[in-house]
Amino acid sequence: MTRTVLESKSKTVTIGFDEPFCVIGERINPTGRKKLAVELEAGDFSTVEKDALEQVACGAMVLDVNAGVVYNSNPNPNETEPPLMVKMIELVQGLVDIPLCIDSSVPAALEAGLAAAEGRPLLNSVTGEEDRLEVVLPLVKKYNVPVVAISNDDTGISEDPDVRFAVAKKIVERAADFGIPAHDIVVDPLVMPVGAMATAGRQVFTLVRRLREELGVNTTCGASNISFGLPNRHGINAAFLPMAIGAGMTSAIMNPVRPVEMEAINAANFLMAHDPNGGKWINFAKVLEATKQGTPFPEAAKAAMDAGGGRGGRRGGRRRA
Amino acid sequence: MTRTVLESKSKTVTIGFDEPFCVIGERINPTGRKKLAVELEAGDFSTVEKDALEQVACGAMVLDVNAGVVYNSNPNPNETEPPLMVKMIELVQGLVDIPLCIDSSVPAALEAGLAAAEGRPLLNSVTGEEDRLEVVLPLVKKYNVPVVAISNDDTGISEDPDVRFAVAKKIVERAADFGIPAHDIVVDPLVMPVGAMATAGRQVFTLVRRLREELGVNTTCGASNISFGLPNRHGINAAFLPMAIGAGMTSAIMNPVRPVEMEAINAANFLMAHDPNGGKWINFAKVLEATKQGTPFPEAAKAAMDAGGGRGGRRGGRRRA
Repeated sequence: MTRTVLESKSKTVTIGFDEPFCVIGERINPTGRKKLAVELEAGDFSTVEKDALEQVACGAMVLDVNAGVVYNSNPNPNETEPPLMVKMIELVQGLVDIPLCIDSSVPAALEAGLAAAEGRPLLNSVTGEEDRLEVVLPLVKKYNVPVVAISNDDTGISEDPDVRFAVAKKIVERAADFGIPAHDIVVDPLVMPVGAMATAGRQVFTLVRRLREELGVNTTCGASNISFGLPNRHGINAAFLPMAIGAGMTSAIMNPVRPVEMEAINAANFLMAHDPNGGKWINFAKVLEATKQGTPFPEAAKAAMDAGGGRGGRRGGRRRA
Repeated sequence: MTRTVLESKSKTVTIGFDEPFCVIGERINPTGRKKLAVELEAGDFSTVEKDALEQVACGAMVLDVNAGVVYNSNPNPNETEPPLMVKMIELVQGLVDIPLCIDSSVPAALEAGLAAAEGRPLLNSVTGEEDRLEVVLPLVKKYNVPVVAISNDDTGISEDPDVRFAVAKKIVERAADFGIPAHDIVVDPLVMPVGAMATAGRQVFTLVRRLREELGVNTTCGASNISFGLPNRHGINAAFLPMAIGAGMTSAIMNPVRPVEMEAINAANFLMAHDPNGGKWINFAKVLEATKQGTPFPEAAKAAMDAGGGRGGRRGGRRRA
């Protein structure tokens, strides 16, 4: 049974075929977020703090940390990204106790992040490109961590799912040469927008099944890409995630501060027999009910988490005489 | 390729592995609807008319018609149900031009319905019970229609999915003895409530796959049973339907006047490459947008259908000079 084990300072999260779907929160990432980029350059980490706390409250089990900001004062990410990655990781793991996913295209930032992270983080990512394989796999081996493997290579991203499968297989084989086991590779089969390619959904479902059966690996994806450019995107995401989970997908890098998508994942976990007695579903239904009364989702989710965490404790103040 | 062909007076609907999911509208059924039962006994068919029109507007491709009302004046359904079935079928097929599903546990009502229906209706249903097999299969053969086969038998409904598969296999084999091909059997593998049985969802996904691969049959189910007794039922249904579709389920008997479930099915069709270019999704997104502005779903759906149906025609009145 394939199990990818991640750790924070004191918590373990397992990505696996017989585990609830692993939600990796994507928000701590300045790419495409100009306001956050400006804040980070100015040394303001308030949004990072908010994103960390909100994502955990909403159900993230792992937090992706990406420090890929291009400073106005220094446009060289090889110089700016490693120290910013360390700072962000130290900040986040001081706030929340769940495993991190160290996300960068700059090798020095990956290594700085690995050195700074407590526990056993997920490295994000290696591809089938030769230079990436040669730089990233030694880090994976040295730090004994699992890694996200994206199925593109030096020829780019193939529209042919058989080629994407072959790239994933090559990465798994190359990792084995380094002594890295398949259960420490989490393959991203690449999700195309269904608005641009009618077979995009089917490709992913077929690929996930093959990756699981033939390579024995866990899988992940940037889930929201499926609905790129379409109206009512959340509705497509909320069908795609359960279908991917049914096909065997075991994690996604996504925004957990979205009730529609999190509702779909909670329901799919229940339907995959990963929520015995439906306790998590029933709690989540209460959160949704609160959002219908006007409470923002992160607040409603946090209140439910605090209530659960306080069970048997001394929180809340009111006690019976 | 398995294709189950249904016909109304002038329209053909195909249930098949490479077709959009077939929504069979369940509303025209007095079971558990006291008000409707009283109306029918009094000869008032206004709710039947409304249910027929609304379901078609909302996306039903087939309409189930069940006349299983127990009159206060005559408690014998063998006497009351056949003429009522004929009356309801004549009414419905006079209003809407989509295939019907003749639904009864009274053999005389099934035959009366078969004689009254235009085109090629779906018969609902046969089970693995010996007396049902001996009575219903000759009707299926005589009228050359497809039939829903429910996988329970004289021992009841098994909680063991292997037993339910075996019952389905027995029905397909017995039908073959009558000269009825597998592509005219639509198996209902029986959906248990996930709140009562943690493996209920997984059982269905596995069974649908086996029924398709090993018996080559189309499948259907009473979809809403999965969420029986649970809070926020629509959220579970809306994950279950895409997961079942991903596993190969090709139809469901369900309430189409529910935007959450219909949104999930429209998204799943798109993701299964059964909505090339997303035209249906984009239209459905407009309907949802109208419901957010306050228009009831059936009205918004009807307006969209009329706008589509009026394209190139003379409806609407306004013309440019």
